[in-house]
Amino acid sequence: MRHLLQTGSAIRRVWEQGLQLKALHGAEAVADMTLGNPAAPPPAALVEALGQIVAESPADLHLYTPNAGHPEVREQLAAHLHERGLLPGARREHVVMTCGASAAINIALRSVLEPGDEVLILAPHFPDYPAHVLNHAGKPVIVPVGEDFLPDLGMIEAALGERTRVLIVNHPNNPSGRQYPPSLIEELATLLRGASQRARRPIYLLSDEPYRELRFIREPFVSPARLYEYGLMAYSFSKSHSIPGERIGYLAINPGHPEAKELVRALSLANRILGFTNAPSLWQRVIARCLDAVVDLEPLRRHRDRLVTALADKGYDVLAPEGTFYLFPRTPGGDDEAFVQRALDQLLLVVPGGTFGRAGHFRIAFCVDERTAALAAERLPHATVGGRA
Amino acid sequence: MRHLLQTGSAIRRVWEQGLQLKALHGAEAVADMTLGNPAAPPPAALVEALGQIVAESPADLHLYTPNAGHPEVREQLAAHLHERGLLPGARREHVVMTCGASAAINIALRSVLEPGDEVLILAPHFPDYPAHVLNHAGKPVIVPVGEDFLPDLGMIEAALGERTRVLIVNHPNNPSGRQYPPSLIEELATLLRGASQRARRPIYLLSDEPYRELRFIREPFVSPARLYEYGLMAYSFSKSHSIPGERIGYLAINPGHPEAKELVRALSLANRILGFTNAPSLWQRVIARCLDAVVDLEPLRRHRDRLVTALADKGYDVLAPEGTFYLFPRTPGGDDEAFVQRALDQLLLVVPGGTFGRAGHFRIAFCVDERTAALAAERLPHATVGGRA
Repeated sequence: MRHLLQTGSAIRRVWEQGLQLKALHGAEAVADMTLGNPAAPPPAALVEALGQIVAESPADLHLYTPNAGHPEVREQLAAHLHERGLLPGARREHVVMTCGASAAINIALRSVLEPGDEVLILAPHFPDYPAHVLNHAGKPVIVPVGEDFLPDLGMIEAALGERTRVLIVNHPNNPSGRQYPPSLIEELATLLRGASQRARRPIYLLSDEPYRELRFIREPFVSPARLYEYGLMAYSFSKSHSIPGERIGYLAINPGHPEAKELVRALSLANRILGFTNAPSLWQRVIARCLDAVVDLEPLRRHRDRLVTALADKGYDVLAPEGTFYLFPRTPGGDDEAFVQRALDQLLLVVPGGTFGRAGHFRIAFCVDERTAALAAERLPHATVGGRA
Repeated sequence: MRHLLQTGSAIRRVWEQGLQLKALHGAEAVADMTLGNPAAPPPAALVEALGQIVAESPADLHLYTPNAGHPEVREQLAAHLHERGLLPGARREHVVMTCGASAAINIALRSVLEPGDEVLILAPHFPDYPAHVLNHAGKPVIVPVGEDFLPDLGMIEAALGERTRVLIVNHPNNPSGRQYPPSLIEELATLLRGASQRARRPIYLLSDEPYRELRFIREPFVSPARLYEYGLMAYSFSKSHSIPGERIGYLAINPGHPEAKELVRALSLANRILGFTNAPSLWQRVIARCLDAVVDLEPLRRHRDRLVTALADKGYDVLAPEGTFYLFPRTPGGDDEAFVQRALDQLLLVVPGGTFGRAGHFRIAFCVDERTAALAAERLPHATVGGRA
């Protein structure tokens, strides 16, 4: 823990410096683009469902649920996954309600890892994945994606070994904003299928997809968990329903898993012994009534377009995100820490790419209000000052 | 996980047999005394606070909170702990909001254990403690309490070793119902203080006390976390507020801890990396408005008295519980599994003592409604049939 406390604190450091700046110049003057804590209100359907359920207050509303969740909530969620084409064939026994996506990832890792097993993580990555792997005596193996931010099958193949047990993917990707094409996911599934046969035990494909409803392109989203029999889907309603503080999500498994029943028993037990017990009961009930609801995407689309334009105008090299509410431009001059400080001088808070395992970039979270998005666009320093992009 | 799935499933087995019995004879005919899932409604103050907060719906209601919890909620909780005399001197920086007591225990163990460290667990114990220790590469060491269900200082002293890092205590105790006298806790603190000095690193005393508001005696409750500078308090509002499904509690540390700041930083980080992220935001707000509320204890007192009388009348050897909503009688004949089956034949569901690391006993959970308590008292087989108590 002492080691962990000393590392991986870049977001916190920027955040603390931001607090000082806000105290000095006023919160209104600072464009804080550090955190994925959405400014968007929850969808009306969620607010309505919450009010209704609190008013109805059924007798078992606040009681323990089974570790896997309320049976009827799991039923409704499975029907939703089937009907939406996200996980065709999903039934109640393929889903486990969790305290968000991080909980889903942890119960999955606890259920399938043996001590010393390797977990491949595509970089750039959500900063906590390596710690989640270490929680369960696994060994994180970082595999960079290509310059286009798509998985590089050659790199993944080279990283696969006898002890490989899981590959974690995250698309639309935090921080790059990339969505993976279905053909690439098919190739990835084929690669893992072959490697599993050679290793004589399955390699799991754990797909973390909390941003799949926040997309700005027409190409459909396809879950890696759908295309592979050892696919696992970690989902959180934090982003689609703008309720990140409430901790509600799920872990779903591919219905073709040959030992589905035993795996779901393990996931349920992991929910209990890791200390989650069950996903919050009230939120299970609420979410079941508004599974199809999504926050208003228009403000996010506006912020994205405004910031992509501002970045291009100022000479940055950036991919227009296909999904998520993040931008991950190349850092002018290449020195992330120096750039983050330069941005701080302009009262603009961003996160260095090294936090995500990809130096030479920085992350802008644009899940902010209109005024802050405009301020950020204005405050962005010109890329050519202090080094070319 | 396969090993864990095969063991420790006695509660589940009884529960599954109970489901069959309920299908066969009707749920009304079965006295299910297996689970600590309270029939008591939440206190009116909680219901009111929930309604108010949902109606007020502040803009940040559902957003991420800091990993340690809303600062103002931590502030109110610390004031409550100080004013109630539970943890004099507690301030905001000594408490971390968690997803219940199991989460609190897990973040505590993650924060203080090095791989291979030993954790002493007093038996009988909550069934998941050993798994919680194993989650963090610790080694559970089971130490039986005395015949009177009080900690045996000699046994604890004999179990202390160079690698001992934590002692977990739980009072009022699940399943025995025993509350520990302050003088005994003082002696325990003295013992641990001496052992810490000899080992040249602190031995933590982790006190799990979700039942401290459910007590039937006049003697005051004193938290072990109060009397020892390396004391940690794990609390859940599940029992006092009858909301076990909502996952809200906290971990508090003794204000005299010499490295309080670093420890709380570690606890907050553990909250994040173990996948809890933060305690549910809505529930943090609700609980802060009704910290002093407690469920109506009168029904529990009636059930306790009725069952203690029935047990005595039928020839059982049982301690009248000082707190909790459990009874832990000695098993007539000594064979727990045989007795549990005999009770099942009477449509009475109870849990064998081995589940709690104490064979020769069985547990009755009396957090049930009036009718079920009466049914259980009636269905209890006479102790003298099939072997003397």
